[in-house]
Amino acid sequence: MYRTHNCGELRIEDAGKEVILSGWIQTSNNLGHMNFVQLRDRYGITQLNFNKDDNAELLEKSGKLGREFVVMAKGIVRERSSKNKNIPTGDIEIQVHELTILNESKVPPFTIEDESDGGDDLRMKYRYLDLRRRPVQNNIIFRAKVGMETRKYLSDQGFLEIETPFLIKSTPEGARDFIVPSRLNPNQFYALPQSPQTFKQILMVAGMDKYFQIVKCFRDEDLRADRQPEFTQIDCEMAFVTQEEILNTFEGLTKHLFKETLGIELDDFPRMTYDEAMVRYGSDKPDTRFGMEFVELNDLAQGKGFGVFDNAELVVGINAEGQADQYSNKDIKKLTEWMQRPQIGAKGLVYVKYNDDGSVKSSVGKFFSDDDLKAWGEKFGAKAGDMLLILSGETDKTRKQLNELRLEMGRRMGLMKPGDFKPLWVVDFPLLEWDEESGRFHAMHHPFTSPKKEDVDRMLNGDHETMKSLRADAYDLVINGSEIGGGSIRIHDRALQERNFELLGFTEEEAEAQFGFLMGAFEYGAPPHGGLAFGFDRLCAVLMGQTSIRDFIAFPKNNQGRDVMIDAPAPIAKEQLDELYLELKEKE
Amino acid sequence: MYRTHNCGELRIEDAGKEVILSGWIQTSNNLGHMNFVQLRDRYGITQLNFNKDDNAELLEKSGKLGREFVVMAKGIVRERSSKNKNIPTGDIEIQVHELTILNESKVPPFTIEDESDGGDDLRMKYRYLDLRRRPVQNNIIFRAKVGMETRKYLSDQGFLEIETPFLIKSTPEGARDFIVPSRLNPNQFYALPQSPQTFKQILMVAGMDKYFQIVKCFRDEDLRADRQPEFTQIDCEMAFVTQEEILNTFEGLTKHLFKETLGIELDDFPRMTYDEAMVRYGSDKPDTRFGMEFVELNDLAQGKGFGVFDNAELVVGINAEGQADQYSNKDIKKLTEWMQRPQIGAKGLVYVKYNDDGSVKSSVGKFFSDDDLKAWGEKFGAKAGDMLLILSGETDKTRKQLNELRLEMGRRMGLMKPGDFKPLWVVDFPLLEWDEESGRFHAMHHPFTSPKKEDVDRMLNGDHETMKSLRADAYDLVINGSEIGGGSIRIHDRALQERNFELLGFTEEEAEAQFGFLMGAFEYGAPPHGGLAFGFDRLCAVLMGQTSIRDFIAFPKNNQGRDVMIDAPAPIAKEQLDELYLELKEKE
Repeated sequence: MYRTHNCGELRIEDAGKEVILSGWIQTSNNLGHMNFVQLRDRYGITQLNFNKDDNAELLEKSGKLGREFVVMAKGIVRERSSKNKNIPTGDIEIQVHELTILNESKVPPFTIEDESDGGDDLRMKYRYLDLRRRPVQNNIIFRAKVGMETRKYLSDQGFLEIETPFLIKSTPEGARDFIVPSRLNPNQFYALPQSPQTFKQILMVAGMDKYFQIVKCFRDEDLRADRQPEFTQIDCEMAFVTQEEILNTFEGLTKHLFKETLGIELDDFPRMTYDEAMVRYGSDKPDTRFGMEFVELNDLAQGKGFGVFDNAELVVGINAEGQADQYSNKDIKKLTEWMQRPQIGAKGLVYVKYNDDGSVKSSVGKFFSDDDLKAWGEKFGAKAGDMLLILSGETDKTRKQLNELRLEMGRRMGLMKPGDFKPLWVVDFPLLEWDEESGRFHAMHHPFTSPKKEDVDRMLNGDHETMKSLRADAYDLVINGSEIGGGSIRIHDRALQERNFELLGFTEEEAEAQFGFLMGAFEYGAPPHGGLAFGFDRLCAVLMGQTSIRDFIAFPKNNQGRDVMIDAPAPIAKEQLDELYLELKEKE
Repeated sequence: MYRTHNCGELRIEDAGKEVILSGWIQTSNNLGHMNFVQLRDRYGITQLNFNKDDNAELLEKSGKLGREFVVMAKGIVRERSSKNKNIPTGDIEIQVHELTILNESKVPPFTIEDESDGGDDLRMKYRYLDLRRRPVQNNIIFRAKVGMETRKYLSDQGFLEIETPFLIKSTPEGARDFIVPSRLNPNQFYALPQSPQTFKQILMVAGMDKYFQIVKCFRDEDLRADRQPEFTQIDCEMAFVTQEEILNTFEGLTKHLFKETLGIELDDFPRMTYDEAMVRYGSDKPDTRFGMEFVELNDLAQGKGFGVFDNAELVVGINAEGQADQYSNKDIKKLTEWMQRPQIGAKGLVYVKYNDDGSVKSSVGKFFSDDDLKAWGEKFGAKAGDMLLILSGETDKTRKQLNELRLEMGRRMGLMKPGDFKPLWVVDFPLLEWDEESGRFHAMHHPFTSPKKEDVDRMLNGDHETMKSLRADAYDLVINGSEIGGGSIRIHDRALQERNFELLGFTEEEAEAQFGFLMGAFEYGAPPHGGLAFGFDRLCAVLMGQTSIRDFIAFPKNNQGRDVMIDAPAPIAKEQLDELYLELKEKE
């Protein structure tokens, strides 16, 4: 037996007991006649005491313990003379009378402390050492807890966890698939699923009624920061269900997770239509921890001779409260330049300051009277000390730009408070999105999303313009500006699904080849159904108030899709390729 | 809202309530003036009553409902005149006053009944209809329950479910990997994991202490009956742990599963060494629901002039109790032929019958006196009416053959009782297995398995012959002759791991290229650790007393590795191959 207790559980009540602990050496504090050694495991840290009076030989042996050595120590629990109030085991120490070195350790390439001196690459290469650091370990433990609580909640609601296959068929729509050559079926390929979408719908046709799965999904995308080629979804589907029932079910799940993992009781989640979110925040995932909502100024700001505004489709701004005296001309100039970067692409930025002395100052003072500017202020509800920031231009673009500005100001003004959680359902998404570039519609959610009941006729019979106005029973859950997940009521009727594929530019043959099995299933008694998927990695990060999903994945890939610890991907043997009837082509 | 209740929950106490049910039409019994319709969902079946007196129009509408139509019915719960005691809802029916057809159905290609008239291929193609059949649905529901109970038990024991990556590196050892070409790293490949073995060991080095995962694994093997290219494991690992603690933990899990899913309380599991299992049953996964143990006869049967026995390394038999008068000479001949098939390969089969009248009859009566044969009977504990079946030859082969015979006789004699569960730990497996053909050692469990402590020195310093006698801390859980899973204490020391790779025929370079990261990790404070994996598909099948794992997988592949429902694998677009810098080679 390697231990009777772990390193986090002994208390003053255990004084006098003989115990065995095993763990890693965190630090030694060797005073010559005495050595205080901190022994660490997943559960905590316990102090081992070696001293000359008790056992001179053992004291000497303890002096040879290096950082991260693995040891087993047998001894008596006793009260410490100098207590450590910062750790739960701080009242006691172990007077060791037997010490076994289970394994030695080379000096780690970075410190195993909360704040490490290791760079990103080094920590990824030695991920097993990085994972020993408490903050990383806590993230992984937290993730396990969120997963377990999700499963408990959904099981208790009658959901069945059903595994869907990983070796499926490639569908060229959407993101790129990872493919898997089949040896038994030469020149044919499986694909790894981007999501279990069609399978969970098939499970509804199969009468499974309520399905969930916490499941890996795969996308072969060009990796941006914080994208992973493999990621995890909480994937759900229900039959005989309305959008309302789905929202309530997963609002229930989300509340449960907050309560069980953070001890936070959330109020009912507000709901907002996609259109409203765009008007008020310029985003379908607004951070509602703070206001600073958009105010449109076309009525007050146009027709006064300022050409930029007069020619704009939309004049819209936000009120940065109390910021008038925080921004010098130089600061405004810098902020304007920030907005003009190609990532955002604003042409300019208009400000209006309402000074404490009652005066008004603005970059467009030449074009507007003080009374004009005060009327704007009234519309914004601006007080003395506030500063308006105003953009103008084409509606969609301008809203997008102002959304960036609002978020930036929120950050600068400290309005995104950690520990403050503001969930929001965004509903009534458009069904289709017209893409000028490719000259075709894209599915705003995915090709299986149903139009709202009242839009079905218009979808089946309407003209091209009509299609742009179709609304879907599609919804997203947003928390603090992060999209946690989304879903929709699905089409369960073959004719409607065919029409959707047609609108999305599929030929009949393409639709049949890729999704014939699903449309076939719709002909054998498919029930109405719908569902949703949460990004599990993202959900964990948001719950912990962190931004990087990589910190919640035990073995993440880097930005080139590489696992630098195991050094994958890697070349393979020619025999393996031969068996698969494949040949490599040189990259030019 | 599509329903206020499901089709399995209404009882006589609900009489008088207005309810809405939704589901599938199982059957109609249309008497002209009345129509009894059985409405089915996952939860049960409820009778809908339409009749002329209540609503003639609705009665007519109900006459158009075909099998598997999806309907929503609103009505009043009332007591049935003719009750059905076979179903929980059999006391009531719904007097329907509103009927909505939610979706129609073509006539299914096979009947959706417990016993279907559909062949295997048809049922796989229309898997969504097959899954509607109660026995198949029950299997999937049962699997979900086993999964959930596994997670609850292990979580309560402090295990963390941690996801390991699916896109890893190919290691040519063992079974074939499925490979995944990387687009971002041209001419390089990921592999899908055959198991998370190295990652779970890394997690122990990382201090995660107790890990589990219910996880898909992949093997590109030539498919035999009941093998799947993707299958699921309950995968576990623990640090600072002895074999004894691992066995106890997973015996606890197994008992928990039997209790929670079947209501069966199992006794403590017996343990048997590999050597003992081979001697007593000729198998490392004996079915211990029945005895019929091997008895070795060399002492009594050799040296009496019967050349076949005299020249054999082993003479060994079983006692088929009460079978003496069940087997005519013709039956014995048939059984002998069955044993001589190439799959088993016995040379012959000797019988001895102890007749009720005290006489003895044997195929080797010419060579042995009645007294000789009676002495054999005594050694077997044979009674009047019993029949010995005896094989001889090279020890390992003969035991293997006799194992097949024992199982066959067990089947014929009805000794494998359904509902009778006999778990067994088989322990102390050999570490290495000498393979004559390839002239090298294979790992009996896998290359990461530790020799027993007392064998470490012999492993590091012994000669070739010594290696054959090394024993490992490796164990299998066997239930009713099925291997549920197995595991081992792992090597956590670089030098020992290097020695094992050397014995297994790896060059230093190969070992480093494939497993360098793991051996590197062993140098930074790797704790002693071990674990185990259960085959989840197999476990579910064994719990339900069934033999096919395919019936416990929602979307299994067929024997050619194909998913015939979605028609995968399939050819892919040339553009996809181009992006991956791959070319197809023609199969000759």
